Amino acid sequence: MLVVGATGTIGTAVTRALQPAHEVLAASHSKAEFTLDLGDAESIRDLFSRCGRVDAVVSAAGQAPFRPLLELSDADFALALGNKLMGQVNLVRLGVQAVTDGGSFTLTSGILSRQPMAGGAAISLVNAGLEGFVRGAALELPRGIRINAVAPGWVRETLVAMKMDPSSGAPAALVAEAYVRCLEGAMTGQVVDAVGVAG
Amino acid sequence: MLVVGATGTIGTAVTRALQPAHEVLAASHSKAEFTLDLGDAESIRDLFSRCGRVDAVVSAAGQAPFRPLLELSDADFALALGNKLMGQVNLVRLGVQAVTDGGSFTLTSGILSRQPMAGGAAISLVNAGLEGFVRGAALELPRGIRINAVAPGWVRETLVAMKMDPSSGAPAALVAEAYVRCLEGAMTGQVVDAVGVAG
Repeated sequence: MLVVGATGTIGTAVTRALQPAHEVLAASHSKAEFTLDLGDAESIRDLFSRCGRVDAVVSAAGQAPFRPLLELSDADFALALGNKLMGQVNLVRLGVQAVTDGGSFTLTSGILSRQPMAGGAAISLVNAGLEGFVRGAALELPRGIRINAVAPGWVRETLVAMKMDPSSGAPAALVAEAYVRCLEGAMTGQVVDAVGVAG
Repeated sequence: MLVVGATGTIGTAVTRALQPAHEVLAASHSKAEFTLDLGDAESIRDLFSRCGRVDAVVSAAGQAPFRPLLELSDADFALALGNKLMGQVNLVRLGVQAVTDGGSFTLTSGILSRQPMAGGAAISLVNAGLEGFVRGAALELPRGIRINAVAPGWVRETLVAMKMDPSSGAPAALVAEAYVRCLEGAMTGQVVDAVGVAG
């Protein structure tokens, strides 16, 4: 299977969780075996031409800016829509022919889709948009291919790196379990929350 | 107040419901006193420079294509994201200074955000994205300005015009009541469903 964003905090944990049972092709912007620019459809086409047939595509990738509503620029929205949102939508559109019968897509939204916070309006937009897309696309993907989204909250390792209180974050290894459930389960069109518990 | 999309099926009913109690400035693509291209930020800036201060902005506008997932083109997604989604987001970003203290924005998403159907993946994406944006933006709008979304289902008049069974559609006048509730109520960050009841 193909893991996009494989070298990020979540992607590393997902890869670690999958590797015992699955062959993982690791893709990321610059540090993995397969490189891609998620914001560039041509780069995504090229990725699938290089990696060949896969039984699943997992995406833990996508950029979207955290910034106060009235400071969000046209470029901020363009990044959010072009990278995290349409980048992951394009993984599905351009990757569907590469996925084997009964395979799956697992995308990454985020809990800001439904639990907003100040500074997160652009991220709430793209996360919710991804969740809507997943619900719709699940009805139409061919050959039994499933699609789900994992919605992480704060990740403990990220909070530590940002020198913030890590107690409300979920360890990346726990978040990764949500991706494994999407991959190995039977559900489609679902959003799986993967949030931490305080303390 | 400013009603964008005032000449559409829903916008006409909203305007009719508001006019007894409110002064309505009607805007639409080509048929109203104020014209605009929702997909063009410059056109939205120009609209607000022409209409001056308003106590509310209601949008019942926005194009997004209904088309099978695997037939949706790059241009289809660009229309959905650029018109219905970012067009309405830009009404907020570019219109916030024109709205008086304690005023409101009421945008239009649609029930496909959470009740998907085949052919609706791009619409589910933009509707859900709008709902996420509304939840996030509500936390940050200044001067007590509120923001909500109305999520219509099928509208009876639209089904009649399409020669489809109208029994599952809500009359436009009933859908319009949801917009009035958003305008005259106190809620913010909410999505108000306005769907029909069979029969």
